[in-house]
Amino acid sequence: MHCCSRCQRPAVTELHSPRRRADPESLIASARAGDARALGRLISLVENRSPELRPVMKAIAPYTGTARVIGITGAPGVGKSTVTSALAAAYRAAGMRIGVLAVDPTSPFSGGALLGDRVRMQDHATDDGVFIRSMASRGHLGGLSLATPQALRVLDAAGFGLIIIETVGVGQAELEIASLADSTLVVVAPGMGDSVQAAKAGILEIADIFVVNKSDRPAAHEAVRDLRMMVAMGNWGEGSWRPPIVSTVAVAGTGMDDLTEKIGAHWSWLASSAELASRRRARAREEVTAIAVAALRERVGGLPGDSRLDELAGRVAAGQLDPYSAADELVSG
Amino acid sequence: MHCCSRCQRPAVTELHSPRRRADPESLIASARAGDARALGRLISLVENRSPELRPVMKAIAPYTGTARVIGITGAPGVGKSTVTSALAAAYRAAGMRIGVLAVDPTSPFSGGALLGDRVRMQDHATDDGVFIRSMASRGHLGGLSLATPQALRVLDAAGFGLIIIETVGVGQAELEIASLADSTLVVVAPGMGDSVQAAKAGILEIADIFVVNKSDRPAAHEAVRDLRMMVAMGNWGEGSWRPPIVSTVAVAGTGMDDLTEKIGAHWSWLASSAELASRRRARAREEVTAIAVAALRERVGGLPGDSRLDELAGRVAAGQLDPYSAADELVSG
Repeated sequence: MHCCSRCQRPAVTELHSPRRRADPESLIASARAGDARALGRLISLVENRSPELRPVMKAIAPYTGTARVIGITGAPGVGKSTVTSALAAAYRAAGMRIGVLAVDPTSPFSGGALLGDRVRMQDHATDDGVFIRSMASRGHLGGLSLATPQALRVLDAAGFGLIIIETVGVGQAELEIASLADSTLVVVAPGMGDSVQAAKAGILEIADIFVVNKSDRPAAHEAVRDLRMMVAMGNWGEGSWRPPIVSTVAVAGTGMDDLTEKIGAHWSWLASSAELASRRRARAREEVTAIAVAALRERVGGLPGDSRLDELAGRVAAGQLDPYSAADELVSG
Repeated sequence: MHCCSRCQRPAVTELHSPRRRADPESLIASARAGDARALGRLISLVENRSPELRPVMKAIAPYTGTARVIGITGAPGVGKSTVTSALAAAYRAAGMRIGVLAVDPTSPFSGGALLGDRVRMQDHATDDGVFIRSMASRGHLGGLSLATPQALRVLDAAGFGLIIIETVGVGQAELEIASLADSTLVVVAPGMGDSVQAAKAGILEIADIFVVNKSDRPAAHEAVRDLRMMVAMGNWGEGSWRPPIVSTVAVAGTGMDDLTEKIGAHWSWLASSAELASRRRARAREEVTAIAVAALRERVGGLPGDSRLDELAGRVAAGQLDPYSAADELVSG
């Protein structure tokens, strides 16, 4: 279809039609050459679970595996986004290209997620060496575990040397971030009563580095002391990494040198031990499993009928059938 | 094996051995007769994903479908457990048997979860008309979506007329609770800045009743006003249920009559519309799907080798293979 009978340009509707098939090869080439729009479209394929993702993933596989991945998590209000922004600025100053994925597990809205955080990230809005994307995962099939590793993979292939994944530290989300990242930063703020809370929730198992942000507050010393005690009580094997505690005032850039130094030290430790390869294999394992399960789940839901599932569910709700027998019928059918 | 050569009582180790096979029929009969230990063991089967769950679920199916299910969710610190406890007391005074499932999506520790909440629930500790169980779901395969509906099913079959599921309102957990409950209560507290937050996270979609707890605080009027405005802005169809707003001071029992009245009104609305049957069918659909997916997932993970998954993951991590092709191989293998 052309614009009009007089010219040969493609019709505008054709240009912008969401149904227009993306050409994976050229999108990837553009994204690798630094085209943010092409990159954005690739990430949209991930978010929409597009069938075109499959050839894209196939094509980019050889370009992956070079990015370093930093996960940042913590309770609401501790300043995760400010830490993320300050960290991005620090690495940007060192000439790195940086991708930021802000994942909001509490929001069902894609794209518009973490609006406030996006605003805080505006320092980087005009810098095409920094790519920022908000992703929402609430209510999505497979949640974080499906979309985030693939978005990561796209950024990796597009040549971003450092990728920061930021998520609010609630429930399953922080575990998933930790499983994706090479280095996981757990951010706390003084006087929020959350350091003990954090310990309770088993945060020690995921933190590679603790960041006490807003450390100009009076209670900062106590937060550091609590964390130090917690780390001291940990059961650390020989040669294992003990999470250091870094004090920052991210909004003023204070402590960022110390933080990047500790991140570098952790990276060196990872690379010199078997840990880096092991973490990345684990990440791939999770990713492959998530894709396999999603495929199987679709098979379950998309059988000869959702009507079949409905019928089985009706019988279960009425007490005529137990859910295991129903599941058997569903899977075998 | 007997206790000793002189008596015929079973050996103590045999009595308490966790390896002793439970006899589903007699456990169910005991639980239905009011034996809390038998009930506890049935719930443990659920938590441990025991293979014995299957015959249990089959046997109890005919006894299910009578319990009313109330979900209670909200941010940390708003007083969910106190509301739960006060509500249990109110219904208990009316002669009902009540089951309470306190589900902690932030904790990986089963059984010991929500210790603080358990303490607050101690008013009911000596009352065998109230059964309280804490469940942890963090990091568990399938999380809430797998264990909670089945624990619910067990309590239902054991004759509890009312089941309260309490969970902290974070991410996926509150959506899952809402999908399980007949009536969902969203608890907020004044001055925690969470009513707007709640609105942002799309809480309107899950709340059947809003509870403004700690309503003796100065900012209570504002919280009620904010919620009222939010409800007024909702897009309500003809005959649909508009969530009422109830003010309580649960720790003093204030407002509980109003709350039980609103819960009753919601129940009447559910029962008189097609909504009750539809919600329960949806619940069964979720449950059956979760079991089916878990079964499929086990099939994926437990293939001729985890070694196979490891090998595929290694190739993905090295960029030699894309994750979709790896998932294909895994599923087809």
